[in-house]
Amino acid sequence: MKRIISIALFTMLTAFASAQTYVCPPCNGPSCDTLTFTQPGKCPHCGMKLIKKEEEIKKLNVCFYLYDGIEVLDFAGPLEVFSYAGCNISIVSKTTDPLRAQGVLKVLPTYSIENAPPADIFVTFGGNDDVAANDPEVIKWIQSRIPDTKYFMSVCTGAFILGKAGILDHKTVTTFHNSIENLRKALPNSTVLADKRFVEDGNVLTTAGISAGIDGALHLVEKLRGHDAAIQIAKQMEYDKWVPGEGLVVKK
Amino acid sequence: MKRIISIALFTMLTAFASAQTYVCPPCNGPSCDTLTFTQPGKCPHCGMKLIKKEEEIKKLNVCFYLYDGIEVLDFAGPLEVFSYAGCNISIVSKTTDPLRAQGVLKVLPTYSIENAPPADIFVTFGGNDDVAANDPEVIKWIQSRIPDTKYFMSVCTGAFILGKAGILDHKTVTTFHNSIENLRKALPNSTVLADKRFVEDGNVLTTAGISAGIDGALHLVEKLRGHDAAIQIAKQMEYDKWVPGEGLVVKK
Repeated sequence: MKRIISIALFTMLTAFASAQTYVCPPCNGPSCDTLTFTQPGKCPHCGMKLIKKEEEIKKLNVCFYLYDGIEVLDFAGPLEVFSYAGCNISIVSKTTDPLRAQGVLKVLPTYSIENAPPADIFVTFGGNDDVAANDPEVIKWIQSRIPDTKYFMSVCTGAFILGKAGILDHKTVTTFHNSIENLRKALPNSTVLADKRFVEDGNVLTTAGISAGIDGALHLVEKLRGHDAAIQIAKQMEYDKWVPGEGLVVKK
Repeated sequence: MKRIISIALFTMLTAFASAQTYVCPPCNGPSCDTLTFTQPGKCPHCGMKLIKKEEEIKKLNVCFYLYDGIEVLDFAGPLEVFSYAGCNISIVSKTTDPLRAQGVLKVLPTYSIENAPPADIFVTFGGNDDVAANDPEVIKWIQSRIPDTKYFMSVCTGAFILGKAGILDHKTVTTFHNSIENLRKALPNSTVLADKRFVEDGNVLTTAGISAGIDGALHLVEKLRGHDAAIQIAKQMEYDKWVPGEGLVVKK
């Protein structure tokens, strides 16, 4: 009898397994995201371990607020990370006119502040951050997003933009190494720390300069998607020296 | 007499110093590159150590060849590095039509293959590299650039593009960790190594995947501009864990 049950169970499991659909963890790669597989294994395009289709998790919406004179690696590092984490990323600027990153890369924003979709995560970046921080219309728009945003993040001097919107008030934060003193002056009610790769304080994550945005984004993915997901993304990006948790998480 | 000579020398040096003009090492930052200073010190915008105007070195021309479906960090990392090294970077694609990086970032190329200026350094990147590698017109154009190019560099699967143009023949090279075997098949006359952050073989530098492009670009800057320049850029980018020379330089 035991044997008959075992055979029946094996048959059922086989039938279940054969009906199973596997997908590549979403990475916004045009060659990957539309493929399905009938067996587990690795994606032949990007090499990521396939997951069961029903394991696909709700895509988080992320707003990248860009402006003319933005630092290219500030946003490209987190863009790579959030993309591999399967997020829906919206590229937003004040208008949809072309802007220039790093003085040389012309970028066409997908949305303006008139039609940008709501976001779970709202991120600002460094460079000529005054373009955004000193624009009352932009700051007012960012403030209007506060109620619906779950996490705010800034990279480098993007902290000055969140700061201007009041989002960093009474928070412990960090920024680009050369802007620590200026941020202290700009935010007398905040605690601005130097020599931290990132600082997470509640739902606000601020990072040090430029490349530190990669670490901040990986930390946020680790928090929202789990350690294994973040490790897999770091490996995919060959960001070999990533040290999970190499930042300050403020305990309340 | 000695004292008189000393005073005269001091006066001359003071006069020379007061006539001296200092500039920020070029970083393509619109707020930095047009500023001049009469005293040594740090740039108030980006914090880089000011250099004497006459120490400004000939700007190297770098061609970034982009295509639709390109991986964003593949090119953004080196763009940040070469930008801080003061290079003239041209963003080139087959046409000047908008392309999409990482599936979400719309980029407007500055030049097409019809009008791209000559370059000292020619760089290709990974992603949907077939778009470029399988386009005979693009490959023919890249081949036409060989005589005037001093250095070729590829990031990630950008190696398949240089490979298709014959630039990697009989060279020792590397690529994205998941594409090592495929590159071996594509380039039977080359030696394709795994587990190398970058490989430099003569005037060809190939890197591992995605974030390894930052290391490759820093290595090339170190080679062309010296160790101190590369260290200064890594520090500026807060790429703290950069290990200079962490790659293979093939000795002939």
